[in-house]
Amino acid sequence: MSPHLPSAAAAELPERVLRFVRETVIPYEKDPRNHGHGPSEDLVHELRSHAREAGLMAPQLPAEFGGHGLTHLQTAAVFRAAGYSPLGPVALNIMAPDEGNMHLLERVATAAQKQRFLRPLASGDMRSAFLMTEPDDGAGSDPSMLRTEAVRDGSDWLISGRKWLITGAVGAGFGIVMARTEERATMFLVDMDSPGITIERILDTIDNSMPGGHAVIALDRVRVPADQILGEEGRGFDYAQVRLAPARLTHCMRWWGTARRAHDIATDYACRRQAFGKPLIDHEGVGFMLADNEIELKQAELMIDWCAAVLDTGAKGTHESSMAKVAVSEALYRIVDRCVQVLGGLGVTRDTVVEQAFREIRAFRIYDGPSEVHRWSLAKSIKRRMKEHRAS
Amino acid sequence: MSPHLPSAAAAELPERVLRFVRETVIPYEKDPRNHGHGPSEDLVHELRSHAREAGLMAPQLPAEFGGHGLTHLQTAAVFRAAGYSPLGPVALNIMAPDEGNMHLLERVATAAQKQRFLRPLASGDMRSAFLMTEPDDGAGSDPSMLRTEAVRDGSDWLISGRKWLITGAVGAGFGIVMARTEERATMFLVDMDSPGITIERILDTIDNSMPGGHAVIALDRVRVPADQILGEEGRGFDYAQVRLAPARLTHCMRWWGTARRAHDIATDYACRRQAFGKPLIDHEGVGFMLADNEIELKQAELMIDWCAAVLDTGAKGTHESSMAKVAVSEALYRIVDRCVQVLGGLGVTRDTVVEQAFREIRAFRIYDGPSEVHRWSLAKSIKRRMKEHRAS
Amino acid sequence: MSPHLPSAAAAELPERVLRFVRETVIPYEKDPRNHGHGPSEDLVHELRSHAREAGLMAPQLPAEFGGHGLTHLQTAAVFRAAGYSPLGPVALNIMAPDEGNMHLLERVATAAQKQRFLRPLASGDMRSAFLMTEPDDGAGSDPSMLRTEAVRDGSDWLISGRKWLITGAVGAGFGIVMARTEERATMFLVDMDSPGITIERILDTIDNSMPGGHAVIALDRVRVPADQILGEEGRGFDYAQVRLAPARLTHCMRWWGTARRAHDIATDYACRRQAFGKPLIDHEGVGFMLADNEIELKQAELMIDWCAAVLDTGAKGTHESSMAKVAVSEALYRIVDRCVQVLGGLGVTRDTVVEQAFREIRAFRIYDGPSEVHRWSLAKSIKRRMKEHRAS
Amino acid sequence: MSPHLPSAAAAELPERVLRFVRETVIPYEKDPRNHGHGPSEDLVHELRSHAREAGLMAPQLPAEFGGHGLTHLQTAAVFRAAGYSPLGPVALNIMAPDEGNMHLLERVATAAQKQRFLRPLASGDMRSAFLMTEPDDGAGSDPSMLRTEAVRDGSDWLISGRKWLITGAVGAGFGIVMARTEERATMFLVDMDSPGITIERILDTIDNSMPGGHAVIALDRVRVPADQILGEEGRGFDYAQVRLAPARLTHCMRWWGTARRAHDIATDYACRRQAFGKPLIDHEGVGFMLADNEIELKQAELMIDWCAAVLDTGAKGTHESSMAKVAVSEALYRIVDRCVQVLGGLGVTRDTVVEQAFREIRAFRIYDGPSEVHRWSLAKSIKRRMKEHRAS
Repeated sequence: MSPHLPSAAAAELPERVLRFVRETVIPYEKDPRNHGHGPSEDLVHELRSHAREAGLMAPQLPAEFGGHGLTHLQTAAVFRAAGYSPLGPVALNIMAPDEGNMHLLERVATAAQKQRFLRPLASGDMRSAFLMTEPDDGAGSDPSMLRTEAVRDGSDWLISGRKWLITGAVGAGFGIVMARTEERATMFLVDMDSPGITIERILDTIDNSMPGGHAVIALDRVRVPADQILGEEGRGFDYAQVRLAPARLTHCMRWWGTARRAHDIATDYACRRQAFGKPLIDHEGVGFMLADNEIELKQAELMIDWCAAVLDTGAKGTHESSMAKVAVSEALYRIVDRCVQVLGGLGVTRDTVVEQAFREIRAFRIYDGPSEVHRWSLAKSIKRRMKEHRAS
Repeated sequence: MSPHLPSAAAAELPERVLRFVRETVIPYEKDPRNHGHGPSEDLVHELRSHAREAGLMAPQLPAEFGGHGLTHLQTAAVFRAAGYSPLGPVALNIMAPDEGNMHLLERVATAAQKQRFLRPLASGDMRSAFLMTEPDDGAGSDPSMLRTEAVRDGSDWLISGRKWLITGAVGAGFGIVMARTEERATMFLVDMDSPGITIERILDTIDNSMPGGHAVIALDRVRVPADQILGEEGRGFDYAQVRLAPARLTHCMRWWGTARRAHDIATDYACRRQAFGKPLIDHEGVGFMLADNEIELKQAELMIDWCAAVLDTGAKGTHESSMAKVAVSEALYRIVDRCVQVLGGLGVTRDTVVEQAFREIRAFRIYDGPSEVHRWSLAKSIKRRMKEHRAS
Repeated sequence: MSPHLPSAAAAELPERVLRFVRETVIPYEKDPRNHGHGPSEDLVHELRSHAREAGLMAPQLPAEFGGHGLTHLQTAAVFRAAGYSPLGPVALNIMAPDEGNMHLLERVATAAQKQRFLRPLASGDMRSAFLMTEPDDGAGSDPSMLRTEAVRDGSDWLISGRKWLITGAVGAGFGIVMARTEERATMFLVDMDSPGITIERILDTIDNSMPGGHAVIALDRVRVPADQILGEEGRGFDYAQVRLAPARLTHCMRWWGTARRAHDIATDYACRRQAFGKPLIDHEGVGFMLADNEIELKQAELMIDWCAAVLDTGAKGTHESSMAKVAVSEALYRIVDRCVQVLGGLGVTRDTVVEQAFREIRAFRIYDGPSEVHRWSLAKSIKRRMKEHRAS
Repeated sequence: MSPHLPSAAAAELPERVLRFVRETVIPYEKDPRNHGHGPSEDLVHELRSHAREAGLMAPQLPAEFGGHGLTHLQTAAVFRAAGYSPLGPVALNIMAPDEGNMHLLERVATAAQKQRFLRPLASGDMRSAFLMTEPDDGAGSDPSMLRTEAVRDGSDWLISGRKWLITGAVGAGFGIVMARTEERATMFLVDMDSPGITIERILDTIDNSMPGGHAVIALDRVRVPADQILGEEGRGFDYAQVRLAPARLTHCMRWWGTARRAHDIATDYACRRQAFGKPLIDHEGVGFMLADNEIELKQAELMIDWCAAVLDTGAKGTHESSMAKVAVSEALYRIVDRCVQVLGGLGVTRDTVVEQAFREIRAFRIYDGPSEVHRWSLAKSIKRRMKEHRAS
């Protein structure tokens, strides 16, 4: 039997998700628990109980983990709908870093690891973190600068180092920790309550949609048994690649929905609000911005779907997802920036969700690699292909 | 039987066209006859004899006119390949305004008109013009300002007025003339050698890919029999719409190919040319430009294909083709501008085709409606949809 | 005797202010009282006691109000230095709306009004508000939509209406209230503790540098005696113009300093932080952004000085200050946006002041008129001048 | 006696030049001799006889060479006025490369060299070339790649190599040739009719304002006596720097005038031409473009004046002129691009000078160093200053 939804049901999912977000999730945006470094655990719990009831939890996952086994292309439409509220992905349990972690575990983890780590993650009962980036001139956009180290101690490993900007770490049940080992780098599944793990602080950041915020974490000889290595020793960078391309793209999907929402709010406002004798939208200065938004939303959607279709062929999609990440993040940012501008004074207040959308998508231009790093890597691959072309 | 190519043959067409352009057309770019206001009639004739031999003339047309009856989506891939040289569309007889005129005639002309006007056009033996825009505060982006008038004289009509920026008029066998009649506006099929038609001058313009250039034309009581009305009297603006959306899009397709060519030339140069101790492409200032080119070429391609698919559903596609026109023309322009910049001094010389590509695509941002007019019309439709949405 | 500083002393002021900001003000940026909707009253008080001690309070004011009677051009250099920290203008008592209010009171208020309102404002012992913009489709960029009304009641006036996005209202001693009167509009000096004034709420906004934040305020038959009319009845819009041009420009000056600071932080980081084998600044993708920052900082500085010199001639400078507002706000925004990007993950955290600078300057693109409103008004004046030119 | 004009006379010069350009030069723009690779020698001669009569030839030069000994700042205003027509600088004998060559000769040449080369150049009776850039992977933006070589032959030198994109070479009396010598590089004054010099071809280029166009030149053992070394042997790169900063800036000045002209034409058109029921300028899509033009013209003017004032202090101004070159060339380009767009169809024709202005200023973004090379060099100097700052 096909692991995928019958296409009619898959075709309905985006519409169902959009209705759920509009009717059930958006009212929570003004909830006082949706504040500070991200929605509170309590709010996350409440949102998920609604999504569970609606049969919409993590719909991209295989049936054995409660989902519908969506293709990347089907996922795209569903995640765009979910992103119509910044709380939508939280409710559906498809936000970063959990969604990317599920994807990685499903592909690389052992059966026992899946049982222990993936199952509670998939059901939305546990959250997780991905401990890659580091302070103090450690790993950032250049992962080769990794400083956190894991050394053998009998059949166990002891991990020491510091990690920085670790999303969702506070409140997470476990984390995937990238550490330098004898051979290159290795990923470990680490319980967040292990002795030796200290949350130094939660960073104040420009964005605040992620439960648990972004933290600085110290690891001091954290003991991890050998069966908590994820996949094979020394293949950490390979797995990072497995996770990376799809994770970048799901970011694009989710934030697309939020930008669409901002555009709808701005359009509605521009059609109602008068200035200098006519509705704002009749001022070309405003109408042109909304026209550009429509164009760029469509382009971003097409780019996402194109890249999703590439991933659906089984290709790694590193080059394509870099293209999509730059194009989509920069376009969505221009869109929400225009929405703020259309709203004028209202746009800089939290009275609409546009202000948050603007801050979140500003951060998105940096998360998962700043646009500059992707352009750098695209240039490298352009050069490589030119060489191959000449050699042929 | 389907009017369309079996999909395998259609799938091969773009590749065949690209090979033809590379091997047969590109060598003519340096031909001295490819100069001045456009390629000479002699050169056009020679190029077409090659295309005819290769079985590639006007491949989008129905079989009865010698083509393969391509869908818009199939056409997109073929025209992009043809545009790899500015002479490619000339060779394949798919350039403006002829291609748009064929499209219009096929849909609106009587059988007799098709026989007399469409057949020689389709075979590449005759060229045509489209006489819409006017000088002296007449019709431009705002067609309602049309000044040219047609008045009845017995069963004939007498057309008087001036037309401006009329592409391909010099050397054309006939033109489609838009004129004000009692009821709104009407289109007439007019032999270009009719008494009363004077070519006042050929304009010097920034572009020079179109045979015949762009002319100013006076019409002084030009007599046209009633059976040379195209379609119905008074429906000129409707037919302009029929012609407009697809014509805009085929412009996008053809110039996409030219921008692709410019990008290939710039990439090749950037990989070979050294400066400050390394190949240009290893300078991020250059590599990033090429990366952005790749992203924007892909986005433009996706936008073209999306709009073509919309047209293939039978929809008018006014809104969608406006979106595509703005997005694609502005993107292609940024691309060729970057190519000029990458080539440096070489880029401002005619030693490569990039210099011409730059000039042509600058003009393209204005032809078929400047970006501002499309944004204006998009804003209007955004407002209209918001009203309908609220009413519902 | 010249009301101005001997030029040597004036020339030293910027340097003195910069030193004061670096040594005394910047350490307060991490103070927990610098949070929420703006620095707390307590923090404001403490900062000002330092500035008073350093002889740097409101240096632009005439000597009788404790300042040095600076020209606009001299003010520019001093305010740019003060803006090197978002807290600098708070410390020096030169932030909005107080600084603009002082300027207006000095020009328009009666001697008695100056004594009662300007003196405590100038000394930094009282804060003020400017109650112009309104919710509910009232006055915004288009002041003619003013809804708040003042009606005579004996020799007093009763003001009713709602005001919105009123900076610094919470904690202010008085406010300048714009209200519709029989003849056009009038400005009133209103004690903020007057019966009938209710602070409905403090808005959550993207920026948080202004003491008191931005509030929504209801006025319900607030009684104001006739001698608290500012200037003449019916001339409210004229005075708004008096206040507007210089107030726009001082915003440019202050935020210039903050953008300069962000650039210095980003430059320092780019010279230290390594990625892919070399310091960030040696990556052209980063180095070019810093180069563009230098260029745009210089252009913004020149634009500010040019407009200040125009104001120093006694001209109103409406056109020039609109030009400066658009050019400077948009340039500073691009600058801080690039700084965030250079800092990468660090840039989206509050670990440096760049994150705040980014948010503040985003809001600045809207405060005192969004760029679109200024462009609209510039286009109008271009048209007017063309008409005059033709008539001459 | 001051080498400078009494300030009243200097203050009047720009106005006199502007009147001369409007009344005398602009009518020549449509002259058929103003075509092809640049204005013909005959046309140059005729224009200069008018300028000579008006007392406006090379006004920046010292009195002994017939000028007014203008400062850089005074020169800026005069050259901006001259640039109001692309033929203005040709008429006044202040165009590239002659103007830069005069500047260099005045500073570096011996008295005898001045007599022989500078005098006829200054009087406008002879033209000159500057032979620096090379084809075949030779010197371009990176001058260290210089391939042309000069070897001693007795007391003479023999120069061999190829030069490319050499402006004004055809018709020039002499050229300044940069060649590799034992020690680094040396500049030679070479008669263009020397045996061994072959003009291989005149390049077709996007621009056509420079008399003689841009040529490819072969040098085959061209014999030059030792007294035709310019300055000292081995100091060619130093002199290139002497020439470079002011030459870049005079380019900015001249093209500023041309962009101003384009803006005036576009504004006039936008105020007259109707579309959709109102003048174009009342469409914000057009009005905003003109507003942005006004802002950017002012910024470019301020940037030019700032850099000129730096040069007037005697500083080399390498950093400042790089900043000015990037800012001004990119701004002027955006301005003329907007002018083309405002003019619509008219903008792509040679019916107004805007079309030429657009092409010329496109080339200007590359001449004297593409923007990317300047940004690269600015980033280097930012890094250097940061190091010095830290060391101090």
